[in-house]
Amino acid sequence: VTGEGEGVEVKWEDGHTGTYPAHWLHQRTFNNATRRTRHQLIRMERKYWDSCLLKDVPHAYFPDLMTSDAALLTWLETLEEYGFVVIREAPAEEGQVRRLTERVAFVKKTHYGEEFSVVAKPDPSNVAYLSGPLQLHADLPYYIYKPGVQLIHCIHQYEGEGAESQVTDAVKVARDLSQSHPHHYHALTTTPVDWWDVGSDKTGPFFKVLRLPMICTDADGEIIRINVSQPQRDSHFSVDVDMVAPWYKAMLVYHAMLTHPKYCIQFKMAPGMILSLDNLRMVHGRTAYGQQKQRGESAGQQQQESRSDKVKRHVEGCYIDWDEVRSRRRVLQYQLTSSPTC
Amino acid sequence: VTGEGEGVEVKWEDGHTGTYPAHWLHQRTFNNATRRTRHQLIRMERKYWDSCLLKDVPHAYFPDLMTSDAALLTWLETLEEYGFVVIREAPAEEGQVRRLTERVAFVKKTHYGEEFSVVAKPDPSNVAYLSGPLQLHADLPYYIYKPGVQLIHCIHQYEGEGAESQVTDAVKVARDLSQSHPHHYHALTTTPVDWWDVGSDKTGPFFKVLRLPMICTDADGEIIRINVSQPQRDSHFSVDVDMVAPWYKAMLVYHAMLTHPKYCIQFKMAPGMILSLDNLRMVHGRTAYGQQKQRGESAGQQQQESRSDKVKRHVEGCYIDWDEVRSRRRVLQYQLTSSPTC
Repeated sequence: VTGEGEGVEVKWEDGHTGTYPAHWLHQRTFNNATRRTRHQLIRMERKYWDSCLLKDVPHAYFPDLMTSDAALLTWLETLEEYGFVVIREAPAEEGQVRRLTERVAFVKKTHYGEEFSVVAKPDPSNVAYLSGPLQLHADLPYYIYKPGVQLIHCIHQYEGEGAESQVTDAVKVARDLSQSHPHHYHALTTTPVDWWDVGSDKTGPFFKVLRLPMICTDADGEIIRINVSQPQRDSHFSVDVDMVAPWYKAMLVYHAMLTHPKYCIQFKMAPGMILSLDNLRMVHGRTAYGQQKQRGESAGQQQQESRSDKVKRHVEGCYIDWDEVRSRRRVLQYQLTSSPTC
Repeated sequence: VTGEGEGVEVKWEDGHTGTYPAHWLHQRTFNNATRRTRHQLIRMERKYWDSCLLKDVPHAYFPDLMTSDAALLTWLETLEEYGFVVIREAPAEEGQVRRLTERVAFVKKTHYGEEFSVVAKPDPSNVAYLSGPLQLHADLPYYIYKPGVQLIHCIHQYEGEGAESQVTDAVKVARDLSQSHPHHYHALTTTPVDWWDVGSDKTGPFFKVLRLPMICTDADGEIIRINVSQPQRDSHFSVDVDMVAPWYKAMLVYHAMLTHPKYCIQFKMAPGMILSLDNLRMVHGRTAYGQQKQRGESAGQQQQESRSDKVKRHVEGCYIDWDEVRSRRRVLQYQLTSSPTC
């Protein structure tokens, strides 16, 4: 024990001497309380929600996020806890997702590039570029390093009926499924599914395939990632034939729950609104719009329609990795509250 | 069965009719052979190795990689199988890791930026910027999305003694450890370790923390990731106190094996050489060089030394995600051999 009684001096076998202050040692005590504090620093605890959340959707204001570190921190904490924050009052023009991302860290690039615009366009490499309905899904399920957070910025909204956004906490639904239909939950957490995307976009040709269950859990059984995206499910299903039917049954029950009004919130984005979403946890979708909605036309007719300029809807998006989002959250917590310990 | 007998026409309950060619159905048969083919497309099988490999280190030639798609494919396949390929005859100047990366896909950015130079420098944010020995390690163990592949390009090599590179197949060693010391293997695959990096670099301040075992396995017990990096192991160790001593014992045995000449290959990079490494599987290091090597000086003296211009060693590196590397490998396989099936 040191002279002032506020530390311990240790002489090690190799001759090295180290002095360890009491408060430093205390922070490193091997007990549950210390472990919980550290755990909360690493990952904040998730708060699960269903559509009751719609009464009080977590939200933030773009101008605040761009100017106030405290507002930025609150947004990042809320995003980590709820997996979903609506941001209002961004300028309704391109470049805002990059501006916001650079307040946090930097863009995660994928084979769709850095920022990507979602507008109805002919000969698309992705179903999002059609004006038909976009079923609830998570983006890029075929990435081992699936982007963690996505920003979706509404620049121009379709003014007719439709084009409403849908968001569901797919981890909350999975947890409820594990209670109500444990055998379905078991099928969805253990049956490997082939996820798939082949085409060409900004970065050239790509050929992505990955085999992962729809609901991925870690060694402790905690849900770490949801993979849902019907168009990106491979026509190859690399399982024993007797696993096929039980898996489809389970998937249909899970899908029905995801889209059920008990869980799914639905609203129309106004220009200048940005959705920020945890892409490992949430699923999102969009109802049909334009003539596609009104007439239920075929894909061919839909392409013609999008070539004409009648359907105007423009959304810009990009991704940020959770590694960078959490790092920024910790830096801000340290700077603003001095709470995390190094 | 269709008229030509080469397919099956199915009328579905909802009125939709689909015709499925026999060869398409055959590729999707629910059996082990089909599954294996698909598995090899997703991830090629790893070939494990020890230092006997030194007799015939997997290698490629930079000019070939830049001009021949066949050479590029062979390199990517070998990298996926062996986790390590030495590339020769790159120009000994900056910018080559980016050129090579862009032949594959694009750079994965981290808080150290895109390309990063490793030169001895004062007041470094990372131990790699010192001229002392760099113990065997994998890069960025505190990233959930740990970069998958790294390129290390030697631009200027220290001409005196030392500065030799070391590379070990840490997955091979872990597998051998599971046979020779199962209780140590158990400790290293189940004890969560806090990995840590706090500082500031090109992208501003960062505060990374992650809790993961040193050897990470998936649900089938297969090793998917190795985390080794002494300087980036947190001084917080968030476990029960009775797990501490067994973990340290196991870690020391594993480290001794990693550095043992049976497993570790050691060689000096020539200017123009690029190491390509699987950062989820390999560990790499570098012996000390300069006055640090000759006199065994302290860190303070070492900084002074690096301020003087006596120590000249310059290495440039960057990362690529396995998602993009495997995607490019599949695109090339498809283009050059038509072997993978969509």
